Amino acid sequence: MNFHTRKWIKPQDLNPNQTLFGGRLLEWIDEECALYSIIQLENPKTVTKYMSEIDFRSSAKQGDIIEIGIEVVKFGSASLTLKCEVRNKMTRETIITVDKIVMVALDENGKPKPHGKTKVEFVKDRLEDK
Amino acid sequence: MNFHTRKWIKPQDLNPNQTLFGGRLLEWIDEECALYSIIQLENPKTVTKYMSEIDFRSSAKQGDIIEIGIEVVKFGSASLTLKCEVRNKMTRETIITVDKIVMVALDENGKPKPHGKTKVEFVKDRLEDK
Amino acid sequence: MNFHTRKWIKPQDLNPNQTLFGGRLLEWIDEECALYSIIQLENPKTVTKYMSEIDFRSSAKQGDIIEIGIEVVKFGSASLTLKCEVRNKMTRETIITVDKIVMVALDENGKPKPHGKTKVEFVKDRLEDK
Amino acid sequence: MNFHTRKWIKPQDLNPNQTLFGGRLLEWIDEECALYSIIQLENPKTVTKYMSEIDFRSSAKQGDIIEIGIEVVKFGSASLTLKCEVRNKMTRETIITVDKIVMVALDENGKPKPHGKTKVEFVKDRLEDK
Amino acid sequence: MNFHTRKWIKPQDLNPNQTLFGGRLLEWIDEECALYSIIQLENPKTVTKYMSEIDFRSSAKQGDIIEIGIEVVKFGSASLTLKCEVRNKMTRETIITVDKIVMVALDENGKPKPHGKTKVEFVKDRLEDK
Amino acid sequence: MNFHTRKWIKPQDLNPNQTLFGGRLLEWIDEECALYSIIQLENPKTVTKYMSEIDFRSSAKQGDIIEIGIEVVKFGSASLTLKCEVRNKMTRETIITVDKIVMVALDENGKPKPHGKTKVEFVKDRLEDK
Repeated sequence: MNFHTRKWIKPQDLNPNQTLFGGRLLEWIDEECALYSIIQLENPKTVTKYMSEIDFRSSAKQGDIIEIGIEVVKFGSASLTLKCEVRNKMTRETIITVDKIVMVALDENGKPKPHGKTKVEFVKDRLEDK
Repeated sequence: MNFHTRKWIKPQDLNPNQTLFGGRLLEWIDEECALYSIIQLENPKTVTKYMSEIDFRSSAKQGDIIEIGIEVVKFGSASLTLKCEVRNKMTRETIITVDKIVMVALDENGKPKPHGKTKVEFVKDRLEDK
Repeated sequence: MNFHTRKWIKPQDLNPNQTLFGGRLLEWIDEECALYSIIQLENPKTVTKYMSEIDFRSSAKQGDIIEIGIEVVKFGSASLTLKCEVRNKMTRETIITVDKIVMVALDENGKPKPHGKTKVEFVKDRLEDK
Repeated sequence: MNFHTRKWIKPQDLNPNQTLFGGRLLEWIDEECALYSIIQLENPKTVTKYMSEIDFRSSAKQGDIIEIGIEVVKFGSASLTLKCEVRNKMTRETIITVDKIVMVALDENGKPKPHGKTKVEFVKDRLEDK
Repeated sequence: MNFHTRKWIKPQDLNPNQTLFGGRLLEWIDEECALYSIIQLENPKTVTKYMSEIDFRSSAKQGDIIEIGIEVVKFGSASLTLKCEVRNKMTRETIITVDKIVMVALDENGKPKPHGKTKVEFVKDRLEDK
Repeated sequence: MNFHTRKWIKPQDLNPNQTLFGGRLLEWIDEECALYSIIQLENPKTVTKYMSEIDFRSSAKQGDIIEIGIEVVKFGSASLTLKCEVRNKMTRETIITVDKIVMVALDENGKPKPHGKTKVEFVKDRLEDK
């Protein structure tokens, strides 16, 4: 699993127990999955269709730095299934894992659109091919 | 199910398909569940522990008004299990349902704290009892 | 008066006295009035035209939950006059009341547009009529 | 009246008629009044107590620049009464005027605290006096 | 140098040392320069091209009020070079200075567009001329 | 240079030319530098002291994905000097480079505090050493 985007926990990200608000974490995960899918599927109109159950295993407090990791589970015809883990950057303790997040590529009318991808590609290689 | 909080879809709530961004919706649901639980359990330190799978059934676009409904599934010892539905206010079309969201009441050290509640209470009745 | 939307006071909603910032409260009231009017008048281009005097009677602090109530005062030809009260959800103490908020329905050119409504309707009934 | 703070109308500041959202404008006015009062009364715990009726005379659209003007109406014992006007920077057209905004200086317990001020002072002069 | 826009340091504007976050300050400076240039050049499509080195001389803490000053250094053909200083409103202590910020006026295709201006103008005078 | 955090350009990140607002970009760069320094210096109270000149070479539009790269230039006694590049994720075109950003580690009183670091460390290795 590759860990990319990092977030810094700020006052506005806390719940009343003064730990990271779950809703904020889900927002960050969904955005990261969307970014990852848009890059892989080369389709900017890629949206979230399904997210499997979420177990909040540990939390984070103000000032902590977390990092969000994404791994591809499966390439469908118009979809991409991802797995996501969020962990504390300094201790590597897992905060949350989501086993299955299904992203779908859409055409101009908002209907699923086959993307023709079957494996993870690196932008570097795409550019070198050209 | 009682539908309370309403949200108005603004430009900053959209995904690249120009429909409601899933992450924003999850943030709103989590906040609404926290508010509902804090009121029911009378404990301001109530946090999200678990959320069951999420299926995005339909979406919403800029200018739409949605409403968030909550229903109690079960009162645990220190927990409260909720069910949530989000629907379009004008058409009553369902946008998302989450069957099981487990909220946990915490004590000052962040440990689960029994809340002694067994049924839904109305603030009005609490105040009248006093 | 029906109380719907609930808000949770967060750090970014406080004034330097560490109580709820008046400007934020006015923003929430205006948004709630707009939502209510759009639903009643069935016109998404409904805007605020007038707000009567505002007396901040009590305040709220971080972690408090407030609820916003709306009541119709009068249906005009192109307008809707509302009354608004914000209270603390737990104590039912009134934070603010605004006796008169005039919302106006607009046409595509931004001019007042008669809405033909004369009484409060429930979306449920509208849908059942169809 | 002195016009100071300028704001640039962005997508997130618009109502569904694509003009400046009234609630946002009230938020800005309240913040500007608080800033002005804190500087004049030399008390950081100064909060809004009352705002007279508000008539939205004209509006502004995305990309417009507005400026907020403040004028002192009266110095009370623990209060400061202000008048506020917001206008379009380029055309000088008035968007809104609020005739009376009462700000109150508070002590550490949140009770009104006499400020001893009777006229507008300039920070420059205060510093030169020292 | 004229000091206009004032900002109030809030919890969300702080870095982990609990002083004003540098990135937020740069965001405010850039917005103020854009506003100033749009007014002077009478071209709403004016963007930042260059910013000279930035030395954070002192900082500010939550509740402080800062003010942002702008001075014109030079009028170019399609550009405007500004100097900016941010200071604490109460103590007049300098927080940051940026000696050179180059703003460029653009045409509809995003290309530099001569603005024909050679000196600072006041909106008041422009309106009186008409 | 390692590219980590990715950002998705949204409506609220645009300037009036409908391209990425420079101030927002500077905010993101500063936050990324702070995160990187806090991790390397193992001191959460690390703040920005200096930023060298900034030349906006190209821009980005709504829906684009950018990535922020950081490289260490020099370890000082209490400081860390970084170099930063932001590029378009899909085309790898450079948007901005900042050659020198000086971050300083502080002690509890806000004074520079030697960090004892002389080279880039990976959190993985730190944890394995333990």
